Amino acid sequence: MSLREYLAAQQQRVDHALDSVVPPETEPPATIHRAMRYSLFAGGKRIRPLLAMAAAEAVAGDVPGIEIAACSLELIHTYSLIHDDLPALDNDDLRRGRPTCHKVFGDAMAILAGDALLTLAFEVLSGRVAAAPEVKVRLMEELATASGTVGGMIGGQVNDLEGEGMPPNATLLESIHRAKTGALLRGSVRIGAIYAGAGEQQYSDLSRYGEHIGLAFQIVDDLLDVEQSSEDLGKTAGKDAAQQKITFPAVYGIEYSHAMAEQERLAAHRALDAFGPSAGRLRELADLVVQRKA
Amino acid sequence: MSLREYLAAQQQRVDHALDSVVPPETEPPATIHRAMRYSLFAGGKRIRPLLAMAAAEAVAGDVPGIEIAACSLELIHTYSLIHDDLPALDNDDLRRGRPTCHKVFGDAMAILAGDALLTLAFEVLSGRVAAAPEVKVRLMEELATASGTVGGMIGGQVNDLEGEGMPPNATLLESIHRAKTGALLRGSVRIGAIYAGAGEQQYSDLSRYGEHIGLAFQIVDDLLDVEQSSEDLGKTAGKDAAQQKITFPAVYGIEYSHAMAEQERLAAHRALDAFGPSAGRLRELADLVVQRKA
Repeated sequence: MSLREYLAAQQQRVDHALDSVVPPETEPPATIHRAMRYSLFAGGKRIRPLLAMAAAEAVAGDVPGIEIAACSLELIHTYSLIHDDLPALDNDDLRRGRPTCHKVFGDAMAILAGDALLTLAFEVLSGRVAAAPEVKVRLMEELATASGTVGGMIGGQVNDLEGEGMPPNATLLESIHRAKTGALLRGSVRIGAIYAGAGEQQYSDLSRYGEHIGLAFQIVDDLLDVEQSSEDLGKTAGKDAAQQKITFPAVYGIEYSHAMAEQERLAAHRALDAFGPSAGRLRELADLVVQRKA
Repeated sequence: MSLREYLAAQQQRVDHALDSVVPPETEPPATIHRAMRYSLFAGGKRIRPLLAMAAAEAVAGDVPGIEIAACSLELIHTYSLIHDDLPALDNDDLRRGRPTCHKVFGDAMAILAGDALLTLAFEVLSGRVAAAPEVKVRLMEELATASGTVGGMIGGQVNDLEGEGMPPNATLLESIHRAKTGALLRGSVRIGAIYAGAGEQQYSDLSRYGEHIGLAFQIVDDLLDVEQSSEDLGKTAGKDAAQQKITFPAVYGIEYSHAMAEQERLAAHRALDAFGPSAGRLRELADLVVQRKA
């Protein structure tokens, strides 16, 4: 199967799983379920679930039910986008080419929809995933710490917020991004590994892979914000500079940032050396993260 | 031990456990940990953890470690207060007699602090609680559904929000409050029951107890909003009427609402009939919920 066909098939698998875990639009209270679905089914690339599924494949080939566990990552990611876009935070009107959640449903409903997606992520892992209780507990622990304040996503958002307007600084930059996007991307790979029953060495290799593509992802994200148009991105371009965010291009320049992303891509590949062809999709995803145009 | 001494001792046990699970104020990123602690340690009555601990006591006497599981309820409750107080929702400046979280730390940090407390609740249940994996999974499932959109806390908040300005209506009123406050209060009792290893009949009796005190709690809350001053309540009084909320006094009148609260108190007592003296504290808590003045 070509990469393109594989991605389409996996995205469909994720969308189908998401549709099965989120209450239907008609279920009362309907407004919040509509708001949750509006943001969830807005054409996201599902990169986090795809990473989880590819990591599970690297460990144990075809792993039934992994797509349900993988959903929890998209629920967390989507809640963070909804809250991030709020006027009190990044105040963004456009996301994935459409008006943001609070623009359509109002700030109050957007706050509650984010809360609901976050809560649902744990409801899915505790109640919907078909796995042994020990495995479920490890999945939830990983998801909670990857999205938490200490080295996790929320911690990164706080640093990012507080870093606005500060002079470009390499140490702060890396600490922001290891947490803000890196922790959940690494968490995605780990969740796939845990679900598939990875051994300690595999878990550690895959964690390293996740760290490298996490960094690569953020460098490329910062570069796209500079180099692409809003139309291509489906979100407001040039916002980082406008908000005086600390970014890789701001600290290292554009050319060197490209070289850094390439280095992280290669390091991600090296982390998979002990894996055979079963890690082929993970390798392709590492390439995709660096070569993407949006 | 008198009820007063018992409450003080249990509140201290909860506060100590909360202090052990929330990162210290000095842990980076420090601002969010300060915001989380500001709202957590603002003199809350800890009614949800107390219910969990008393339910565990009813089932199995002294249950070590229950206070850690009980913390998760206070983390959820506090996140919901922080988000509820935001300008986009209830826009409240005063909570437990102090400026609300967003007044002190700003809207952005208050949103993130709420998200962080919600995330931490599941981190605590998955990573900190000393229980068998099967028990942890059940605790997390209960917490997630009690705080979710379908019959849970967030669902109740949505109905409450959408009910503002609608004509007083007994069916809507009860559906709002069963979800908005009732689900987490019943969830508190259930979390204590699950942790202590309750059998099916005990679990079902305690659930019924939880439903009755949940309703009693909300009726009394609505009555206090009408009958007490802001100073006594530590939050803005008279807000329900100002916001045209659907409340028990608005639907049933003050006198009849008092009688309803008393009925729920008695029904809560009856639900405990199969329990002996071990449920004594639960009985006292039911009385307290109805007789409280703030």
